[in-house]
Amino acid sequence: MFNAIVSADTLQATLDSVSVLVDECKIHLEEDGLEIRAVDPANVGMVDLRLDAAAFESYETDGGLIGVNLSRLEDIAGMADAGQLVHLDLDEETRKLHISIDGLEYTLALIDPDSIRQEPDLPDLDLSANIVIEGKDIDRSVTAADMVSDHIALGVDATEELFYVDAEGDTDDVHLELTRDDLIDLTPGDAHSLFSLDYLKNMNKAIPKDAEVEMELGEEFPVKMHFSFAEGQGRVTYMLAPRIQSE
Amino acid sequence: MFNAIVSADTLQATLDSVSVLVDECKIHLEEDGLEIRAVDPANVGMVDLRLDAAAFESYETDGGLIGVNLSRLEDIAGMADAGQLVHLDLDEETRKLHISIDGLEYTLALIDPDSIRQEPDLPDLDLSANIVIEGKDIDRSVTAADMVSDHIALGVDATEELFYVDAEGDTDDVHLELTRDDLIDLTPGDAHSLFSLDYLKNMNKAIPKDAEVEMELGEEFPVKMHFSFAEGQGRVTYMLAPRIQSE
Amino acid sequence: MFNAIVSADTLQATLDSVSVLVDECKIHLEEDGLEIRAVDPANVGMVDLRLDAAAFESYETDGGLIGVNLSRLEDIAGMADAGQLVHLDLDEETRKLHISIDGLEYTLALIDPDSIRQEPDLPDLDLSANIVIEGKDIDRSVTAADMVSDHIALGVDATEELFYVDAEGDTDDVHLELTRDDLIDLTPGDAHSLFSLDYLKNMNKAIPKDAEVEMELGEEFPVKMHFSFAEGQGRVTYMLAPRIQSE
Repeated sequence: MFNAIVSADTLQATLDSVSVLVDECKIHLEEDGLEIRAVDPANVGMVDLRLDAAAFESYETDGGLIGVNLSRLEDIAGMADAGQLVHLDLDEETRKLHISIDGLEYTLALIDPDSIRQEPDLPDLDLSANIVIEGKDIDRSVTAADMVSDHIALGVDATEELFYVDAEGDTDDVHLELTRDDLIDLTPGDAHSLFSLDYLKNMNKAIPKDAEVEMELGEEFPVKMHFSFAEGQGRVTYMLAPRIQSE
Repeated sequence: MFNAIVSADTLQATLDSVSVLVDECKIHLEEDGLEIRAVDPANVGMVDLRLDAAAFESYETDGGLIGVNLSRLEDIAGMADAGQLVHLDLDEETRKLHISIDGLEYTLALIDPDSIRQEPDLPDLDLSANIVIEGKDIDRSVTAADMVSDHIALGVDATEELFYVDAEGDTDDVHLELTRDDLIDLTPGDAHSLFSLDYLKNMNKAIPKDAEVEMELGEEFPVKMHFSFAEGQGRVTYMLAPRIQSE
Repeated sequence: MFNAIVSADTLQATLDSVSVLVDECKIHLEEDGLEIRAVDPANVGMVDLRLDAAAFESYETDGGLIGVNLSRLEDIAGMADAGQLVHLDLDEETRKLHISIDGLEYTLALIDPDSIRQEPDLPDLDLSANIVIEGKDIDRSVTAADMVSDHIALGVDATEELFYVDAEGDTDDVHLELTRDDLIDLTPGDAHSLFSLDYLKNMNKAIPKDAEVEMELGEEFPVKMHFSFAEGQGRVTYMLAPRIQSE
C-alpha cells in the first residue's frame, strides 16, 4: 500500500536528482519516507536520495519497492503548476501507479524492479578534506571548465587553506580558487582528483544554485557531494569516481 | 474596395485560428466584417471564423473575395508590437494587399481564390450534449493525452452529469473527469467519440487559455467547439470529425 | 604591458560589434584606449571600433598589439553577470591573456597577429546624404526586407526630404519612408544604393535598438553607419560596400 500527496516542486526535484544519472530506478517505500539509490551504466556516478515522509502533505505506506521510468514520471509531474499537489496511489494488484493532478488521472505502468540495474552501496570513505560551497560556485566552475576540457580537477590546498578547480585545455586553461572566506566552510586536508566533466555537468543540473553543498575530497579518490532540498526534508548524496591521471 | 485598420493582436488571433488547419485561405470581405471558412486537406478538421467590422478601428469595403498565404500574412503581422495598428488596403487592379505598420509598407501578392481548396459547409448537427469549458482545461487534456496516445476520447456521462477525457496507451492511460462544478456549464446527454489528437492539438494552439469554449458532443459524431476573441467581436467554430472506433 | 578592468556589459558590446563580421581580430592596445579594425573575408563589410580608456574601471598599457579569437572571448565574457567586472591581464612572455571574473581565472592563448587578415583602411568618402536614425528603425527595416529579398536598397530623396528603404521580392515588396520628423536628423542629398541583406542583418545585431545611428549615404556608394556604446566612451563605424545594380 502506498498513498501519498506531495507538491509538484518536491516531486520534480526528487526525480531530477536521480534522472541525471539513470533512466529507470527503484524506489523504496519506507514508513518514514522514500529512498532511491542508483548508479549509472558505466559505474562512475552514484546517487543516494532520501525524501522524508514529512516532505509530503500526506504519506501512507506499509512498505514496498517499485520500479519507475524517470523521464515518463518527470513529464507527468511537469504538467502540474509549481505549487500544485500531486496524488500518488499504488495499485498493487495491477502494478500501476495512479497519479492525480487536479482531476487529471494518469495511470503509469510500473517496471519490474528485478529488471532494473542493481542498486549500489555508496562506500564509506575516509576523505581528507571537507568544504561547504554554494551551488552557484559549482555551476560556474563546471561552465568554465567545459569551455576548455572534458576533465576537471578538484582539490584542496591544506597549507593555503583554499579549494581550487583546474581545467587544462590544449591552448587555454581555467582556474578557480576559493578561500575560507569565499566558502561556507572549510576543513582543510590535501586533496586533488581528476573527474569526467560530463558527469559533474549532469549532477550540477540537479543541484540548486542556492544550495549549500558539502563536498568531501581526497587524493585520487572519489568526490562526495551532499545537499538538501524540500526545506531540508529531502537529502541527496552524489558520489563520482575519479579519472586516473596520466603523468 | 477594402480599406481597414485593425490592431495587430486581433489580426494575429484571426490568422492563427485558421492557420492551424490550412496554409492558404479565402477571406470574404463583407460589409459587416470578414468571414473565413476552411477545411484541412484530409477533410477532417474545419474552421468557420467571423470578425465583425466593429473589431476594426476602421473598416470599409464594398464586398469581395481574396486569397491569402496565411503564414506569410502572420509573419507580417508579427512584425507589429502587440498594441500597434495594421492598415490593410486592397489594390483591386494589381490584386495586391498593401499592409502598413507605422510607416513600413508591405505589398503582398494575393492568391487566386479559385486555386484554393473549396470552402466547406459546416453541417448543422443535432448533438446530444453541450458543455462550456475553460480553454486551459482543453489544454491540459490534450497535453496529457499526448503523452500516451495518438487518439483522445471525449464524452459526457448523462447519469453522472460529467464530462470526461480518455486516452489509452500501450501501457499507460490518461483520464480526466470534470463535473458540473468544474465546468462553466453542462447540458447533459450521453456522448462519446474518438478523435485524432494531432488535430485537437493544433486547434488547441489557437484557443486562448482563458476562453470559454462551448463544446457540442454526440455518440460517434463530430465535436464542435465555439469560442470568441477580440472582446467578443470575433467568433471561431471548429468542427472535428471522429475516428471510427475499433471494437 | 596591459592590465585593465572593465564591466562585462562593455566588453560584450565591444566584442559583439566586431564578431558580426569576423572570427578573429587584432586589438591595438593604445594608451588612450583600444582600437579594432577588421574586414570580412569577402571584403564587403568593415568595422572600425574605439573604446576609450575612460570606459574602463582601470586601464594601464604601454602599447601593444594582440590577436584574439572573438567567439572564445565572447563565451568567457558571457559567463559574467551583466554588472560584473572582468579583469584582463596580458602575459607578454607566454602571449596569454589572463581573464578573471570574481575569482575565476581563464587563461586565453592569443593568436599571432601576423596570422590574422590585414586590417582595412576605411576610406574617407564624400557622401551626399546624412541621416540620424534610431537603431529600432534599422531593425524593422532589415526584418521586413528579409521576408521578401536578399537585397535592400537604402536611399534619400532630397526633394521630398525623406529617407527610404526598398526591398523587392519575386511577388512581394517592402517599402519604408521616414520623413525628417520620423528621423533624429536629416541632411538631404540624393542617394540610392543596393546592399546585401546578410551583411546588414549581421551589423544590425550589434546595433543597440535605442542607439542613435548616423548613416552616410551616396549614389551607388558604400553606406557608413556610426553609433556609440558604453555611455559614449565606445564608438563603432561600419562600412558596407554596395551591390552593383542590374538595370
